[in-house]
Amino acid sequence: ADAKAGRAKAMQCQACHGLDGKSKLPEAPHLAGQVEAYLAKALKDYKTGARKDEMMTMMAKPLSDADIANLAAFYSSLPP
Amino acid sequence: ADAKAGRAKAMQCQACHGLDGKSKLPEAPHLAGQVEAYLAKALKDYKTGARKDEMMTMMAKPLSDADIANLAAFYSSLPP
Repeated sequence: ADAKAGRAKAMQCQACHGLDGKSKLPEAPHLAGQVEAYLAKALKDYKTGARKDEMMTMMAKPLSDADIANLAAFYSSLPP
Repeated sequence: ADAKAGRAKAMQCQACHGLDGKSKLPEAPHLAGQVEAYLAKALKDYKTGARKDEMMTMMAKPLSDADIANLAAFYSSLPP
């Protein structure tokens, strides 16, 4: 996975999760330093509908497997 | 919410999430310092079945609303 490509893709995520991985909303989780496999699973589950959240479903739907791996690599690499 | 009561209840959580909120398994998320409302929602969603995970469903089912609030208060209070 390519954390640098993940950082570029994270422009879509930053309004809620920050480019620093720190939540910008009362209900959004911090992502910085989170377990990489957990982040990838969360995005996959939102994409397939196994996990439901209106906003996250919309954001995850267009992501490729590579996007998901790169985003998980990027956010897990940040200091918590 | 009572973080001290949450710490006592977290004895059930520590094998995977630690009493320090740091994941002890490759697929379990860190909880330390996570957004309190997010943690409470996760437990509620596992309890109701809105969010699915075999282990977490089993763990969340018997929790009361107070247990959930206390656990969220405890884990969100820990340094990430």
